[in-house]
Amino acid sequence: MSRFWNSRTREITPYVPGEQPRDRAFIKLNTNECPYPPASAVARTLREMDAETLRLYPDPVSLRLREALSAYYGFPVEQIFVGNGSDEVLALAFQAFFEPAPSGQAISFPDITYSFYPVYAALYGIPCRTVPLEEGFAVPIEALAAPSGGIALANPNAPTGRAVGRADIERLAAADPGRVVIIDEAYVDFGGESALPLLDTYENLLVVMTFSKSRALAGARLGFAIGSRELIEGLERVRDSFNSYPVDRVAELVGIAALSDGAWFEQNRARIIATREKTAERLRAIGLDVIPSSANFLFAGVPGVPARVLYNALREEGILVRYFERPRIDEYLRISIGTPEEMDALCAALERTVPAVGRPGRFEGKGGTVWHGWPNGNA
Amino acid sequence: MSRFWNSRTREITPYVPGEQPRDRAFIKLNTNECPYPPASAVARTLREMDAETLRLYPDPVSLRLREALSAYYGFPVEQIFVGNGSDEVLALAFQAFFEPAPSGQAISFPDITYSFYPVYAALYGIPCRTVPLEEGFAVPIEALAAPSGGIALANPNAPTGRAVGRADIERLAAADPGRVVIIDEAYVDFGGESALPLLDTYENLLVVMTFSKSRALAGARLGFAIGSRELIEGLERVRDSFNSYPVDRVAELVGIAALSDGAWFEQNRARIIATREKTAERLRAIGLDVIPSSANFLFAGVPGVPARVLYNALREEGILVRYFERPRIDEYLRISIGTPEEMDALCAALERTVPAVGRPGRFEGKGGTVWHGWPNGNA
Repeated sequence: MSRFWNSRTREITPYVPGEQPRDRAFIKLNTNECPYPPASAVARTLREMDAETLRLYPDPVSLRLREALSAYYGFPVEQIFVGNGSDEVLALAFQAFFEPAPSGQAISFPDITYSFYPVYAALYGIPCRTVPLEEGFAVPIEALAAPSGGIALANPNAPTGRAVGRADIERLAAADPGRVVIIDEAYVDFGGESALPLLDTYENLLVVMTFSKSRALAGARLGFAIGSRELIEGLERVRDSFNSYPVDRVAELVGIAALSDGAWFEQNRARIIATREKTAERLRAIGLDVIPSSANFLFAGVPGVPARVLYNALREEGILVRYFERPRIDEYLRISIGTPEEMDALCAALERTVPAVGRPGRFEGKGGTVWHGWPNGNA
Repeated sequence: MSRFWNSRTREITPYVPGEQPRDRAFIKLNTNECPYPPASAVARTLREMDAETLRLYPDPVSLRLREALSAYYGFPVEQIFVGNGSDEVLALAFQAFFEPAPSGQAISFPDITYSFYPVYAALYGIPCRTVPLEEGFAVPIEALAAPSGGIALANPNAPTGRAVGRADIERLAAADPGRVVIIDEAYVDFGGESALPLLDTYENLLVVMTFSKSRALAGARLGFAIGSRELIEGLERVRDSFNSYPVDRVAELVGIAALSDGAWFEQNRARIIATREKTAERLRAIGLDVIPSSANFLFAGVPGVPARVLYNALREEGILVRYFERPRIDEYLRISIGTPEEMDALCAALERTVPAVGRPGRFEGKGGTVWHGWPNGNA
């Protein structure tokens, strides 16, 4: 705590991203990155880029990238906004559309979802109300559609991987056409049903997407939103009051290159989905509870075993996954889908670990935790 | 105006960046970019970069770039923060340190300065009070040091190019050690005196710098701040509540490459300063009033002639400069320093234009403007 921080800076609890190890080579299944290199046009773009152009500011409105997105998704450029990763786009959307306290009505999102949403809300002083997920982590659409100052929903949801259909999104949008509904489709390319076709009907719907997952460009920081002209203009107003050029020259070109290779994209989705399904089956065989996933990760755990235990055991074996020490999900690991070889290593490690920790009577859960037979002797 | 925008989004007046023409080839002297390509290590870095690494998120804390800045500037990495251009760094600083209304006390900055400051203040609801520059655009240090909720000062100032010495900055910092003072040194490498040596004494001082001007990397979006650990941690808290990875992988590497070539940097500063001084002399000979500049631009105009008139005339000749339609400065152009050849073209164009518009009796100024003899027949 510092005397120099204002009251908001003192209050906020920042988001903690997944670890990006600098030294040790891990099998990295902790931040939902793509295990394959981006389309070859990306490497070509970097190699052939004229470095001299870096002396000039980028196009503040990233017109060429938005034109490429327009051609790809079939919406006019005026309905497309790009930013420095979908995190920035989401933050700007919270800032532009949701009314802060004391006048603002609470916005709604599920209790278990992308943990950046409550952080954005706190940063901008937006009151919020979480809606508990149902059994099996299903999204309670009726409760989410209840009157509120706005809605944010990740679909597929994170970290569960569960998706809702377009009809459910339509119910959210239709419930109050004056209320902004943000649908975060970071993972939609791995099996979700996009809300994009609803945009012609619902001007209050903002669909946020990213190049980080299905296009293998997490390192380039590119996200975008598609929505009504009114919503896009709101994002532009806030962006231009903050940082006129969040998308640099290299990122813009690399994004255009990635969009140009439709065949790579289709192949990439397909192979990740195939690996996911095969891995889910194997994890179930090992004894894990695996939530059906429409994303590029699996949410899985051994009932009664704290996720931290499996996390530590995998880390010992050089495999990084992620877990969240929060009620209801503290027995689940979020495991990004890697290459088949990486998933083999994961499954082999779990085959060794799970029988040791998952045997009834060998340990006790929360509240008087006693670990016996745990391979590392710690919990 | 849209029903979907919150009250803040409706109220703000976004910053308008200088034009980045997409088609027509202008002599571009309007956004203070460097007229020379960046150090050759930058091109090499792009060419040799492993595109596969883009599939992974960047290091959220940009440690390697901060290590390079640490080695260059001699401050520990814990005192260095990097962001997506100094605009983002400045915005985060306003957001982290200055208290919004109603509880916040007004912050101070000069009435004529970087026009993003009032925009940031409006975005975050921070009350502000402008302090009028003195005759000749000198910064009134005493008035700026008066009690306030914080201070922001561009040094050298924009768009005037005038600098204040380190002793004056020290007076600002010392006046109230509990108040944050942001010194925006975007242009310091062209003749300003940096406040960096004061950082060991003043924990309330934040120095913000950029790779955009003296390192020719405007297109890469890289800015940084150096200050006490407390201030840097405040910036980190806000950054991590907004966007964990604003600096992408390419930008980080390109920044490190630019820092590695000290000889290029020294040569670049020297040639731009030399061209500036020569250009200032020629503009004075043509009849312009030229403010002494410590930046990579000149602030100059013909007394009695609206800057817009000269702007339009230069634009007709394929030369882009910038002007601001604001009281006290609406007769000045802000002219970025280009190559000697570009400045030759500028001076030649002004030699043709100024006699036509600047001759007494041929026109009248504001309030009953009548233009005679203006080459394009418009004003």
